[in-house]
Amino acid sequence: MAQITLVDTTLRDGSHAVRHQFNEQNVADLASGLDRAGIPVIEITHGDGLGGSSLQYGRSLLSDEEMISIGVDTVQDSKVAVLLLPGIGTHVELERALDLGAKVVRVATHCTEADISAQHIEMTKSRGALAVGFLMMAHMLEPDDLAKQAQLMASYGADVVYVTDSAGALLPDMVGARVRALRSALDDAVEIGFHGHNNLGLAVGNSLVAVESGATWIDGAMAGFGAGAGNTATEVVAAALDKAGHEVVGVDIFELMRVAEEKARPLLPSSTTISRSALMLGYAGVYSSFLLHAYRASERFGVDPAEILLELGQRKMVGGQEDMIVDVAIELSQGRADQGATNSR
Amino acid sequence: MAQITLVDTTLRDGSHAVRHQFNEQNVADLASGLDRAGIPVIEITHGDGLGGSSLQYGRSLLSDEEMISIGVDTVQDSKVAVLLLPGIGTHVELERALDLGAKVVRVATHCTEADISAQHIEMTKSRGALAVGFLMMAHMLEPDDLAKQAQLMASYGADVVYVTDSAGALLPDMVGARVRALRSALDDAVEIGFHGHNNLGLAVGNSLVAVESGATWIDGAMAGFGAGAGNTATEVVAAALDKAGHEVVGVDIFELMRVAEEKARPLLPSSTTISRSALMLGYAGVYSSFLLHAYRASERFGVDPAEILLELGQRKMVGGQEDMIVDVAIELSQGRADQGATNSR
Repeated sequence: MAQITLVDTTLRDGSHAVRHQFNEQNVADLASGLDRAGIPVIEITHGDGLGGSSLQYGRSLLSDEEMISIGVDTVQDSKVAVLLLPGIGTHVELERALDLGAKVVRVATHCTEADISAQHIEMTKSRGALAVGFLMMAHMLEPDDLAKQAQLMASYGADVVYVTDSAGALLPDMVGARVRALRSALDDAVEIGFHGHNNLGLAVGNSLVAVESGATWIDGAMAGFGAGAGNTATEVVAAALDKAGHEVVGVDIFELMRVAEEKARPLLPSSTTISRSALMLGYAGVYSSFLLHAYRASERFGVDPAEILLELGQRKMVGGQEDMIVDVAIELSQGRADQGATNSR
Repeated sequence: MAQITLVDTTLRDGSHAVRHQFNEQNVADLASGLDRAGIPVIEITHGDGLGGSSLQYGRSLLSDEEMISIGVDTVQDSKVAVLLLPGIGTHVELERALDLGAKVVRVATHCTEADISAQHIEMTKSRGALAVGFLMMAHMLEPDDLAKQAQLMASYGADVVYVTDSAGALLPDMVGARVRALRSALDDAVEIGFHGHNNLGLAVGNSLVAVESGATWIDGAMAGFGAGAGNTATEVVAAALDKAGHEVVGVDIFELMRVAEEKARPLLPSSTTISRSALMLGYAGVYSSFLLHAYRASERFGVDPAEILLELGQRKMVGGQEDMIVDVAIELSQGRADQGATNSR
């Protein structure tokens, strides 16, 4: 049975649910509740990481500096973590966060771009903080290729590397394969993490599989706070891990349930729901903004929308490539005619 | 890869979410949407089965007969199923449901009491309908014992026997072990079903494990309709099963997503949420009404509430036995003193 470091990201990834509008009282209440429940690592940053507060990503009510300071001043035992996406945040914001007392830095890149994490991981280590590599949209790479990216992060000094299921698009078997690939590729001293989203209703189940496959860091947000279908609910995954016999180190799961119910859920504007577009995001591993375009193309060219979306997912289309949707629909409709209208999907 | 019969129970188990107040238009809209999406079996009854409309279980707006009639008149291809708990419903209501056109009868008993299903399963078969045995609170029996109960139902003529996780208390490994035990104990002609609840956030994950372990009937309710943490969301489990390569027979998963979003979710008074008490129900496998009593006893006798609740779950306490909670707390506090205050849980 594993010893699990449970990371709560209500005050970072969760803030998408409130459009980054947590106020001072909210940050203090949530941080103190998490600290009291024994959560070892609390991530506190704009939803898109240090420097994310902007017109493009959404302005936050409080600055990163304000939120981090409140968190650091509030907690007794928990470590405050920050997220940094190189390009959105820079070494300036990172230095400042460390000055303010952040003890864990999570450096996040698209899963194919680990090489851009080098500078910030090295800086984190040079300051004596814990460095975590965060490989986002991990469904877009096969396990062995993902492991190579993880090796890069480890080579820069990452103490932990995450399989990050940003789109909630991984099935349990896919999580297991990716975590096992990282586990066998990395030195034993490097831990593996898993960050889930609930688009396919699998966030908790996938976290259990990740742990059984060798992951020892698990992310959640209380009450499933987060964009769309939300993050893995911290209090739910804690209960499930505990029930499965794992040690959720330092955490009082009953106090955590209480904090989630009394402090976090009342702040949710509406309950986290697996909406049609969130489900589609997870199903096809594509951005939900593709959905409407795919339906239109489906009707126009007589192709199943499932085929279009899955093909877009397989071609690893990213935002901005919506014009490819019509091309894909045409190709599929021609390909199907060529093959004699088979029913393959 | 398996061929799955997907059963939607929005109009039965889901009706707990609306306190059994579906009106004629709701029943017609949901039944026609499910039929259009190709769902093969639609369960339509009071939330507690035929005859459940009562002061004790909650009066329904429409009678079972009215709901079943609307369903039968509405669908083109789907079969209408009814649920019967012997004792709540009787052979009179069952005969009437079959007269009205129900084609599938699900006879539900507590997991240790399969023998009381004999009469109704036999009656169902004698009328040429499909008989399904439903073993509720399946977490309360070990796999081999559950399989013996399933054998009883099969001996009466059940075509399908369900592992029913009424409390949402099963972990994936526990689901797998139970489904495999049934699969090896039953004749190949008898299919295995799984009915999940989302108390531990595992409804979809557990359904996938059930299918991998030999189950071919899977239950859901659209948008997770149901009591407490809700049922497995039909449209989500359909997408996950499809993505995992299984055939969800007859179902257009995109139409199903549309029906869930446009017809079902707007009827939910509030989104389905894994509340603290729902989570506790799943964690300890006890009734959520035990929660407050356990906390009080915990404070009074200095015992971890987790210990109390887990012990209650292990002793298989049922509603009405709340007075045992103090006894359990005293025993635990004494036992702990005897053992020298170990930290076991």
